[in-house]
Amino acid sequence: MTAKPHRVVIVGAGFGGLETTYRLAGSPVEITLIDRRNHHLFQPLLYQVATASLATSDIAWPIRHLMRARREVTTLFATVSGVDAERRAVLLDDGSEVPYDTLVLATGVRHAYFGHDEWEQFAPGLKTLEDATTLRRHILVAFERAERETDPARRAARLTFVIIGAGPTGVELAGTIAEMAHHTLPGDFRNIDTRKARVVLIEAGPRVLAGFADDLSAYAQASLEKIGVEVVLGQPVTEVDRDGVVHGGQRLNAKTRIWAAGVRASPAAEWLNAPADRAGRVEVADDLTVPGHPDVFAIGDTVTIPAWDGKPVPGIAPAAKQQGRYVANLIKARLRGEKLGPFRYKHAGSLAQIGKRLAVIDFGRVKLRGAIAWWIWGIAHIYFLIGLRHRLAVALTWLWIYVRDQRAARLITQGSSKVVG
Amino acid sequence: MTAKPHRVVIVGAGFGGLETTYRLAGSPVEITLIDRRNHHLFQPLLYQVATASLATSDIAWPIRHLMRARREVTTLFATVSGVDAERRAVLLDDGSEVPYDTLVLATGVRHAYFGHDEWEQFAPGLKTLEDATTLRRHILVAFERAERETDPARRAARLTFVIIGAGPTGVELAGTIAEMAHHTLPGDFRNIDTRKARVVLIEAGPRVLAGFADDLSAYAQASLEKIGVEVVLGQPVTEVDRDGVVHGGQRLNAKTRIWAAGVRASPAAEWLNAPADRAGRVEVADDLTVPGHPDVFAIGDTVTIPAWDGKPVPGIAPAAKQQGRYVANLIKARLRGEKLGPFRYKHAGSLAQIGKRLAVIDFGRVKLRGAIAWWIWGIAHIYFLIGLRHRLAVALTWLWIYVRDQRAARLITQGSSKVVG
Repeated sequence: MTAKPHRVVIVGAGFGGLETTYRLAGSPVEITLIDRRNHHLFQPLLYQVATASLATSDIAWPIRHLMRARREVTTLFATVSGVDAERRAVLLDDGSEVPYDTLVLATGVRHAYFGHDEWEQFAPGLKTLEDATTLRRHILVAFERAERETDPARRAARLTFVIIGAGPTGVELAGTIAEMAHHTLPGDFRNIDTRKARVVLIEAGPRVLAGFADDLSAYAQASLEKIGVEVVLGQPVTEVDRDGVVHGGQRLNAKTRIWAAGVRASPAAEWLNAPADRAGRVEVADDLTVPGHPDVFAIGDTVTIPAWDGKPVPGIAPAAKQQGRYVANLIKARLRGEKLGPFRYKHAGSLAQIGKRLAVIDFGRVKLRGAIAWWIWGIAHIYFLIGLRHRLAVALTWLWIYVRDQRAARLITQGSSKVVG
Repeated sequence: MTAKPHRVVIVGAGFGGLETTYRLAGSPVEITLIDRRNHHLFQPLLYQVATASLATSDIAWPIRHLMRARREVTTLFATVSGVDAERRAVLLDDGSEVPYDTLVLATGVRHAYFGHDEWEQFAPGLKTLEDATTLRRHILVAFERAERETDPARRAARLTFVIIGAGPTGVELAGTIAEMAHHTLPGDFRNIDTRKARVVLIEAGPRVLAGFADDLSAYAQASLEKIGVEVVLGQPVTEVDRDGVVHGGQRLNAKTRIWAAGVRASPAAEWLNAPADRAGRVEVADDLTVPGHPDVFAIGDTVTIPAWDGKPVPGIAPAAKQQGRYVANLIKARLRGEKLGPFRYKHAGSLAQIGKRLAVIDFGRVKLRGAIAWWIWGIAHIYFLIGLRHRLAVALTWLWIYVRDQRAARLITQGSSKVVG
């Protein structure tokens, strides 16, 4: 071993970047972990912040606190603006640089509007804590406005919630909003019956939860309809504006519109002039390096891997973690002068919560649904939270929702009653 | 009883307004409770949100949820713009009105800058949940910036925290920031020693906690100094700008400045052309009515009552609650055609937390300090939280801070690493 340790720079402290950092523990490396946020976010539960179930601090951790015992890790709260691959340096937006020997890009995705960027202002998406508190405000203000509205048509528009895209996030949002309207909010209002709120889930494809087996999709759809969600399939949304959406040639007036339909990768591919798919995802080699850059890895949502089962590797936390683990192992092997075979994705299963006591789990051969799936879903998510305090806090909150249907985080913040919209 | 119930309109759902509403339960009245926020806020613990100890949802409750079982109470999420006392109607900013037979104004205060409104942008105050998350961002970003700063003078300015005003809020903020720097954050950073951060508490008056007995003030000051707070007394701040403050003719470079020095009442006095003191507080009659308006009460922080012990009634939660209870009783007495004597304030005591295991309590004859006072302070605050869930959540969080010095809510939100300042 030389006196100068190998410098690994990891951009992005999501599931992939964090796992790479964890798995490099004990290696002769010096790690710089860069994120433009100060916290790691447990994105699978972000929709619960948006629907007033969990507090922001229940699903987020200060990155440097997670790394406090790792003296070889330096956490940088900074925004990356590019990569100079020739000089092997990450460029920051304040003009400074961070040199690397090995670079790992785990920069994730944002929502994308299929060429209709102007829709974003009318149908916000859900990727960050701010997105979640913004959505929470939208949803809660809609009920408040409806309570004060006297015109029946305008009141109906206030009480119509459209979710565009029926993947796991769309399904979970639709189910939770429907349950809020039916179980949490009735009794709190005097002029409106929140149970009459319409929750409409619109999907361009032929079924909800396209990543799951057919029968689980059918079950999820039936369950959603049972708890009061209107499911519209096979109809892309062709227009989104301040009054509602158009789908199948029909206008639907809705004051709350949520985008859960498409994502676009972070500009990692542009930074490196790397091959990318239509969504901007880097087409990495089978060892997860960026073609032409053997010292640069890209992992997680920001890449596309055609491997698994004919289908691409899904953009879920376990997949990102597997890639992080593989890259850490490959870096360690290289430092020892050894080689490693290509990355192989192993699909553990797909989970989605539909309602308070309803979920679907697709383990491949084993498929679960209903209450038993919901309990496994809940226990699995609590297990994957970091730290005992977060586990206790989330368990306590869910217990409260389960037993009493009360959602404590029903706070309208960032603005008083004078909210625009 | 007539067929038409007596209409009571209560503006403001703080401690005073909420207590009035609670105490009117069972009376032949129809209540409209108006607030421009959708939540009641437990302000005594707001500084703990600002210092990353508690989550926003730990100390706030949706108002209409608190009133869900009270069918005679209508909750209005709206901003009041004035009062038409002649026509007996509250005017809302959307042009609509709410008629009343009896009006209760419990509209609170905002921070005030003694004629230097331009200081607000440089030294934010702490009254709302947004104020608290803004302050939290300021404080956490200061440490992040210091970690990346290479110039020693600029780094020192990033690590200097000035709190202006040494009342309970100022003392509690200073003590908690000092404990964060000394116990929570060390080990998380690589380039700075957070224990070298300076926390400077500047007070124009001769002692800290002026509302407490002299010996408790002295004890509080000694305790603050022991945990690393620099206390500056008898020096008004004469200048606040983007680089720091000036006090006693000396400039102190500090990138974080917090205002805990003065308040200004809401415009209730202006709405009614009522007599007011310099801070805009309504000078109410001894039955808490606004002079010239026998059907309009004003209570809580928005009024000044010269009664107690030569000193004015303090602007604390128990005082507001006593006034709310008195007004509810007076309204009920009037409805029965009875009279009630003037309002008498009974001071239960003053509490302030200094540090993790330090507090002072002034019960008048009994004075407590140190660990025993801290335990009573903690238990009292948990007791006064509404609802078992909030009590459990706060107790769990405090237990974690007590045992492990970890603060879970260390989240920088509303902006990425590109924060201005």
